[in-house]
This record gives sequence, structure tokens and C-alpha cells, in this order.
Amino acid sequence: MSPGAPAAVPECEEAPVRPTIGSTIRKPGAPVTEQPRTLHDLETPALLLDRDILGRNLMRMRSHLQALGVALRPHVKTTKSIDIAQLALTGFEPRITVSTLHEADYFLQHGLTDMVYAVGIAPGKLRHAAALIRRGAELTLILDNLSAARAVIEAAEGEQVTYSVLIELDVDGHRGGVRPDSDSLLKIATLLDGRPGIELRGVMTHAGGSYDCRSEDEIRAMAERERAGAVLAAERLRAAGMAAPMVSVGSTPTALFATDLRGVTEVRAGVYMLFDLVMAGLGVCRATDIAASVLVCVIGHNEERGWIITDGGWMALSRDRGTAKQAVDQGFGLVRDHAGESLPDDLLVASVNQEHGIVGRRDGGQIDPARYPVGTLLRILPNHACATTAQHQRFQVLDGDGRIVAVWPRINGW
Amino acid sequence: MSPGAPAAVPECEEAPVRPTIGSTIRKPGAPVTEQPRTLHDLETPALLLDRDILGRNLMRMRSHLQALGVALRPHVKTTKSIDIAQLALTGFEPRITVSTLHEADYFLQHGLTDMVYAVGIAPGKLRHAAALIRRGAELTLILDNLSAARAVIEAAEGEQVTYSVLIELDVDGHRGGVRPDSDSLLKIATLLDGRPGIELRGVMTHAGGSYDCRSEDEIRAMAERERAGAVLAAERLRAAGMAAPMVSVGSTPTALFATDLRGVTEVRAGVYMLFDLVMAGLGVCRATDIAASVLVCVIGHNEERGWIITDGGWMALSRDRGTAKQAVDQGFGLVRDHAGESLPDDLLVASVNQEHGIVGRRDGGQIDPARYPVGTLLRILPNHACATTAQHQRFQVLDGDGRIVAVWPRINGW
Repeated sequence: MSPGAPAAVPECEEAPVRPTIGSTIRKPGAPVTEQPRTLHDLETPALLLDRDILGRNLMRMRSHLQALGVALRPHVKTTKSIDIAQLALTGFEPRITVSTLHEADYFLQHGLTDMVYAVGIAPGKLRHAAALIRRGAELTLILDNLSAARAVIEAAEGEQVTYSVLIELDVDGHRGGVRPDSDSLLKIATLLDGRPGIELRGVMTHAGGSYDCRSEDEIRAMAERERAGAVLAAERLRAAGMAAPMVSVGSTPTALFATDLRGVTEVRAGVYMLFDLVMAGLGVCRATDIAASVLVCVIGHNEERGWIITDGGWMALSRDRGTAKQAVDQGFGLVRDHAGESLPDDLLVASVNQEHGIVGRRDGGQIDPARYPVGTLLRILPNHACATTAQHQRFQVLDGDGRIVAVWPRINGW
Repeated sequence: MSPGAPAAVPECEEAPVRPTIGSTIRKPGAPVTEQPRTLHDLETPALLLDRDILGRNLMRMRSHLQALGVALRPHVKTTKSIDIAQLALTGFEPRITVSTLHEADYFLQHGLTDMVYAVGIAPGKLRHAAALIRRGAELTLILDNLSAARAVIEAAEGEQVTYSVLIELDVDGHRGGVRPDSDSLLKIATLLDGRPGIELRGVMTHAGGSYDCRSEDEIRAMAERERAGAVLAAERLRAAGMAAPMVSVGSTPTALFATDLRGVTEVRAGVYMLFDLVMAGLGVCRATDIAASVLVCVIGHNEERGWIITDGGWMALSRDRGTAKQAVDQGFGLVRDHAGESLPDDLLVASVNQEHGIVGRRDGGQIDPARYPVGTLLRILPNHACATTAQHQRFQVLDGDGRIVAVWPRINGW
């Protein structure tokens, strides 16, 4: 055997394509030289983005927060796309939230400087964070414990940079953070405040517990708990003589259902841009508000069991089963026709292998294979937009008539 | 705001790094200029690969199949890495199995030509397949129905290429394929046989049902069912006057437990290279045979609940819960110390958010935070190697002393 002839390998085989509307689109590795114009020109599975629905979703958040008089710091972790981030920032100052320092690198390269890295800082990342700051990032870190605070203080001296820091709060017991009324909050703040190389900027929290709410009233109550906790914590810092200019809260459900955000300076949210079946199950949106879907192709049938077999498996859909604990379990995704319209049959992706999706009826009945012949294109609405889109490297952007008008790359990894 | 200065964007920001041992390694986007030498130099989360364990796993499959006198066609979908594929092919002819045409592109660029694309062909991919064949790929397609067979026949004429085809068999009712004893098998074969532009090469099957076996005896029985079904189908084709030079079977459990593969010409398997907790739960390997893990860092604690919070969430581990239906549920992964050794506490990743992992004790008890201070590195063994490694763009390759001796890129997407 003689595999491995590196001379034949292009240098950029995984480079994201970044064409503008109307330019030639080339899928890396594929010998396609003409721009796909319709879904039928795409190779499946492919990640679709409905531009009009995206626009509506962005407008909804914008109108809501502007009415409440609060700033938005969109979380770019859902889409990881500069094109979408730019649209999401329309009407707001250019501030973003990132979930990885790789996102920080990418968005900084694209001219966005003001960012909160909303995962508790690991000591091993402080050097990378310092490099970002030296490159012009106004990067704010978060932490919730004295050990991390000490590591940041030490690194500030070693790296000779100033780290901006928020203290992470726990308002719902779902993950990390210190309680707004705890002694720990003041201990951490006191350790950081006034230290050389540290700018304590305030507090932040994320009411991830809102994903487990069962009604709009519960979400509204969670939004108030999030707001009240963050404001209390900021007031405690101020009462102790410290500045707390930033009071940052957010999750898509609480952001959209909050009726009062007094004392909050900014809201972070990401999944509202695309929405998904989990959000629809929560009552935060309708299925018709879901902007992203996965185009798959029927490759066969299991006639005995009444299944359709497609080329959209967990690699394309993710393994997310976020609707499993909701009132309506959507399997691995809800099936729509190629245009995104409801089908007469109520079809779900019932199970998945790596590159195979098994589509069945919700009621367990047989699917008539003649209605979905081999080659039929279907769209799968995702349980969780963050997880499904992360399985892809680009969005195929559709206009209202289902034509592909752009390809927007997205990043992944660390 | 003025985001989006494309002049500052390097053209290849997502290009996989492909250093050789000892070369300078640069993480795309990260300003790291020196080669990491130990785990402590890595930014977390990071995908680790133990070179010695990989070697043992490859040797086990090689010895087993060589003793049975059958060829291996490794499935590269688990690792999607030319470096690992080359090692897996040691002692065998250079034949591989791919799960996407993007893999076919990548491995062809690296000099591997003989490949089976082991997902039922979608008509929309026949043009891409033809382009691969024109570039020198000896690409074999699979299908299990007359519609797909007609599409291939039609495309062969339009594209002016010859497609090699295997008929996919169903030996366990878990997905697609035609029954080895069915009329459909002969109908499809008769339609394809002798057609211009078609080379009917035989039959293939995948006993995915082996993942649900409960004992070694059940796996052995499944292996025999897989073999017998494939051989029966091939004999039926031959009895009808058709050639069936390829009789291809495979899944990691059946490949490793088969005691007789008479009549089979090749075995396909992929996960055996890395193994995972699902395979350990099946009894196919031990936890110490798992070659890939995810390095994560402790970023905080929830002292009230007795949890450790790490920076390894579902983005790094995947959402795969393959052990949930096994006797021992491993949560989102089993926790080891930084060197991969067992910990005195029996710790699992109990839940995950996008970039957060919540580690708890299996017995639900409290973890003493002092034993795992902020900054502690841990390794997470994956439920499903295919799913977890797909969340990453490269393997950090470790020698037996835990030193990083290479970085092997892997591809993703379509």
C-alpha cells in the first residue's frame, strides 16, 4: 500500500467557505463549480437557515429589550457565525457573549472587540485570554470562587495585562455561581477589588433553570428571580464600596418573558435567533419560528416496520434529546417536507445511527413508502439549535421562496 | 459599530493542523507558538489519544482477523484521520470504509483509493461519486432498493462512469437492507447485473443489532447470523448466474467475537480502534482499553450539591447516552485523573451544558471540593468514541508517559 501522498493535499481543505450573495460557492472537497440555486442542488445532509424567520426572531428580541430599555449582548455560541452576529447586533452596541476563547479569536478577527467569555475561567486559559486582550479584545472573564480569583490576580501580574472580571451568580441552583446573598460573593469581590491588573466590573448570572419551566408564568417568575438576584448582588457590592457597572443576566426564555429588567444593564441570549423544538415545547416560540433545519434525503425504507431511512443521522442532527422530558417528545427531530411545511403524516426521527435517520410515525403506525420515494428531500427541525448546528460547518441561507442566497460559515471547536 | 473587517481574516482559519512529531503545533486562532509537551500545556477541553492503547487495539483486531483468514476494511468514520487509518491498515491491503463522500474526498487526497461508501446512496450524491471515480477512487456504493438501483443505472449513463455496487442486507431488523432470503435481493441484483456502467460486486451487511446484545454468547450468535446471512445472499446471486466476489460484513462486536468467517471476504469495523464505554459495557473491551478521552479542567464547585464543575460540556463530550440502556449507566462519561488512572471516588459526568460538565459521585454523595481544586485536570472516557471524537478537530497523541508526541487532525462534516 502507499497511502499518504501529502503533496496532493490542498492546504485549506477544511477552510470555511465565505462567499457573499451571488458569488461562486464551492463545498470543500466537492467538485461543484456552479452555485447551488435550490435545495435540490445541495448534497444532503445540509444545514438550512431561513433568512426571513431569522429576521423575525431577531426583531422580536430587539423590540422586546428596547421596550424594556436594556441592552443586548447576544450569545454567539448558538450560531458561531459573524454574518448572524452582525444581524443580531442591529440596533445595539457591538457587544457579544462567547462560550469559548476560539469564538473570541474568531469574532475579534472580524472586528468585534467587546465580549464576555461566559464560562468560569480555567487557570490554563489565562495566557490565551491575555493574548486576546493584547490584540485589542475588551474581554471580560467570569469566575465564582476564590481559587479562580487568585489565579486571575497572579496571571495579571505575570502577563502584564488588566483582566475585566464579573462574578458569576447562582439564582436557580442548576450549575455554578455564588448565591447573591452569600458571604462568598463579598469575599471574592473584596479579593479582586482594587487589585493591580484587575477590573471588577460587576455580576452576571444565567437562569438555565428556565429550560425546566412548565408555563409562561413560571418563566416570568424565573426572569424576576434572575433579575432580582443579580440586582441584589450588585447592590451588595456597591454598599461595600465597590463599583458594579455591569449587571448581566440572560437565557432565551427569561429574556423574552421578562416584564421588568430594572437594574439590569444587559441581557445575554443566543438560541432565540434560531429557536428549536425545546423552545417550542416551552411555549417560547412556535414550530414555525424555528429558523434552522437539516435537509435530509430518503435513501430507502424498512417496509416491514413501516420506516423511512434517511441520510440524516446523529452526525447531522446531534444526539440531543432535549424534548424527551417535555410534554411532547419530538424524538431526534420533527419532520417537515422539503419546503418546511407540515406533512399529512405526523413524522418524527425515531432513532439515529451515525449517518442514518430512521423516520417513523408518532403514533407508531406504518408509513406508506410510496409517499416518500427514494430521493425525497425532507427537513428536520432540531430539538436543540446549539447542538444541531454545531454538527455543521456552514449555513445554507434560504430566502422566502426557498432559494439559496448565501452560504454562511460557522466555526466549531476550541 | 464596525464589525466585519474581512481583510483581517486569514483564509484558512479552520484549516486542520497537520504537524509531524516534533514540529511546531499551532492551534488555529490561538497565539501559541511553542509545542505543548505535556497535558498541562493544553487548553481544555482537548481530545486525547493514547498511542499505546490504540496500537494494542489495532493489534487485537489484526491478529483476530488474520487468524480467521479474512481481510479487514477498517471503517474510518470513527476517527476520520489519515494517521490512524494508515496504522489500522498495517498488515492489510489498503481498503477502507467511509460514511460520507467528504471522507472519500479526504482519504483519496491522501492516497487511499479502494473504499466502500457504506450508507445507501442518495440519488443526489451520484454526481459527486462519479467525480471521485474520475479522480481515481475505486469507490463502491451500496443500495437496498429498486429505486436507488434505477438511479445508479441512469447516472452511470449520464456521467459516463462505472459504479461498483453492493446490495445491502438486513440480518437483524435494526435499520435498512433486504433480507438475504428475499425476492427483493434477486430483483435488485437482476436489474443491476450486466448493465452498462454497473459492476455488481456482491453483498454487504452490518449487524448493528450486536450493540444490543447482553452477553458474549449473544454477540457470537449475532456474528454467525451476520456471516450466514451474507453468505446465503451471495450464494443466491451466484446460483442465479451472477458474480458476487465481495461478501462484506462487520461491526466491532461481531468482528471481534466471530469464530468462523467462512465465505466472508472482508470485515468492516471502526470503533475497535478507540473503544468506548458502550463497548466496555457490552464486554467487548475493558475501560482500560479505551484509547480516546477528553481532557477537561475543574473551573468551580457547587459545594451545596457536592458537584464539581468542569469546562467539558456536551460540545466536548457529545450528547451520546449510549450506556443509558446498559447495565451500568455511565452518565455522559466516566471520570479519570489527568493520567487516565482510576480515582478513589467513583465519579461520572452527571449532566452537561454546552461548555460545562457537572461531575458527581455515582452514589449521589457529596464530593469533597478540596480533593479537586480549581485547575485540576481530569480525563473523561467517552460513551461513544464516534460521537465524542466528532466534536473535535484533532487528536493530541500521547505516549506511554503522557507526553504529547503528535497532533493528528481529523475531519468532520459533509
